[in-house]
Formats: sequence, C-alpha cells, structure tokens
Amino acid sequence: MADFSLETHERNVVVDITRQVNALIPASLRSGVCHVFCPHTTAGLTVNENADPAVKRDLMAKLTALIPRNESFYRHDEGNSDAHLKASLVGMSLTLPVRDGRLALGTWQGVYFCEFDGPRSRHVQVCWQAAEF
Amino acid sequence: MADFSLETHERNVVVDITRQVNALIPASLRSGVCHVFCPHTTAGLTVNENADPAVKRDLMAKLTALIPRNESFYRHDEGNSDAHLKASLVGMSLTLPVRDGRLALGTWQGVYFCEFDGPRSRHVQVCWQAAEF
Amino acid sequence: MADFSLETHERNVVVDITRQVNALIPASLRSGVCHVFCPHTTAGLTVNENADPAVKRDLMAKLTALIPRNESFYRHDEGNSDAHLKASLVGMSLTLPVRDGRLALGTWQGVYFCEFDGPRSRHVQVCWQAAEF
Repeated sequence: MADFSLETHERNVVVDITRQVNALIPASLRSGVCHVFCPHTTAGLTVNENADPAVKRDLMAKLTALIPRNESFYRHDEGNSDAHLKASLVGMSLTLPVRDGRLALGTWQGVYFCEFDGPRSRHVQVCWQAAEF
Repeated sequence: MADFSLETHERNVVVDITRQVNALIPASLRSGVCHVFCPHTTAGLTVNENADPAVKRDLMAKLTALIPRNESFYRHDEGNSDAHLKASLVGMSLTLPVRDGRLALGTWQGVYFCEFDGPRSRHVQVCWQAAEF
Repeated sequence: MADFSLETHERNVVVDITRQVNALIPASLRSGVCHVFCPHTTAGLTVNENADPAVKRDLMAKLTALIPRNESFYRHDEGNSDAHLKASLVGMSLTLPVRDGRLALGTWQGVYFCEFDGPRSRHVQVCWQAAEF
C-alpha cells in the first residue's frame, strides 16, 4: 500500500487528511474506489463535515463525554482503554468512491484521521481499484 | 457511481434500502462485492435486522438517548452536532458480498439508510466489482 | 465467498479471528484487499489490539455499560435490542490490506469477531481482490 505520515499534537484531535489521500490516487483512475486504512489501535478514520471546524471539535467532545479516560472497571494497564474503544466505534477502514483521479465525496464531506491517544507519529495506508457502475 | 434518491420524513428514521441497492447490481455479477456510500454528513448506512420493525426503532431510540440533540458544550451553530456524531459512529461506507447479481446478506439482514437530521432529500451511491473466494 | 464457523461461549465476548482470516487468503495474492463480512445482526467485526487481552475485555465492558441489555423504551420482543445496536456501532464489514498472501495489519492489530448475543454458532465470510498502490 501507499502510505503517508502525520503528527498529532493533542491527546484527542480530528485531522483533515482529504488532501493527502487525494495526492496518492493516480489521475488515470477514471472510476473506482479508494481504500483507506489506519494501522493503529488507538486512532480511527471517518468522513464528516469539511466546512465549520466546530463540527470536528463537537464530535470529539461528545465522544469523550461518552467514553471518558478512566473507568473503575478498566484492567488494561496502559490506561488508554478509552482510546481503543473509540477507535473500534469510529472504525479504521474506509472504502470511498473515486472519479477522474480524485475522491468523489459529497459536497460537505472530508476524510478525517481521529487521534484518540496522541500526541503521536501516525501512518495511513491507501490503495485503489477500478470499479464499475 | 450509480445512485438513487430517497426522501426522509422524520428527523431520526431508519429506512430499508435493500431493494434499491439490489436493483442497481447487474445480474451478470456472479461473485463480487458491492460498495454502498452515503455522501451526506448527517446520515449513515448500516446493516441490521429486516424482520421486526421494532429493531429499527429501538436502535434509533437508544442512539438518540446516548447522543441527545443538545449539549451545553456544542459550538457548531447549525445545532445538529448530534447528527454528525451519529453519522460517524454508524458509518457511511459499506462493502457487501454479492452472489448471482444480488446482495448475499445473512438471512435476517437488510441494508439501512439512517437519517439523523431529516426530513431531507438524500442520495446513496453504489458501485461493484468482481471478487474471488 | 469463502467462510468459516466459530462458536461463542458467552453473551458478550470478543474473539480473535486473525488466523482464520489469514488461512483463507491465497498465497498468490501479492498486493490486494480482503473483505470480511459478518452475516449476523447481533454480532460485529472490528480490528483492535492483539497484545494485552485486557483490551478486549475493557472494550466490551464499556460498550455494555453504555448500552445495557434493558431499557424501558425497547419494543423488540426478543429482548436483544442492545445487541443489534452494538452490532451497528461496531460494524459488520471490514476491508483490510493484504500483502504477500497475508493481512498487512499494523504491528499491534488483530481482527476480532464481537459477539453481543451469545452463546451461538456463527459464520464469517471472506473474499479478496488484487489492488494497486
């Protein structure tokens, strides 16, 4: 897979990676899909609004209110069980439509890397295929 | 991508779209996958029970109890941050098995469009590929 | 699709299925993707940490604390609406990278079957495709 790196600067932060994903898709791919994969267990990938940055902050604030860092019943001794659960709920694999060498997202959609246990150095993997419709 | 439209009639509602997805898959696709994508940021896609309609209502009722419309810390001024978070948790991309020109779902599974900020006019995108097994 | 069976022994349990998925991928697939699908409506699939088993238990414990078995507003008469919601939140379809005939996961990642209404006999479906990067 092709991949790219990013650095996150907070424990919980949502980072727009639409541009980096688009940069890896070949211009020759007229109609297809792009698979984006997060190889980490305390981070995830999603698609959401690319206009008002408050949406990213509200997403993370509510998710953290639902799943706070500490619970009396947690047994994992690294103290980041919250990040593992957030990663499984948001998900780590996306399959996105491609047209004319670029992601064919909705008007208001961007692709986001969701950091749940930063700051860290992270990678994102990308591959693509032709598809019919 | 091929696509189809639907109208939603409530703010929060789960709509069975299995028939519409099946209608777009070519009969000639003997073995493959179908990618279904939601190009909206306040709606999602899932697969769940197709028998008792109470399941759809219970899903949405509990999700709305967990993520109510208003939180004192929300900053997005459209007032639908709850819908954006629900969309990211349910997800917006599905990859489903196809056999003999139809979705090869489990006996009790249907494909559902999850509206979190209706009523609205919505679209769903569909493409497909051969796959081996 | 190729598939394999598993038995679950508790109502809520996370089972590592990485080995079973790898066993179905042909050694000849040098670069591609593997699609894994759960044909059940009260179970899901995720990717998470493969090292400390406490992570699996903490994931399930917190998810069950958020979504307990009983709610006064549930109407589905089988009494497992919690399991249906958990399945939709965790998800039932994964698309994973493959290199040299094996899943190309991150160092700490394993593939997990999430049982939310066991004990039951379950199936997992697997197919694969070449992909470019």
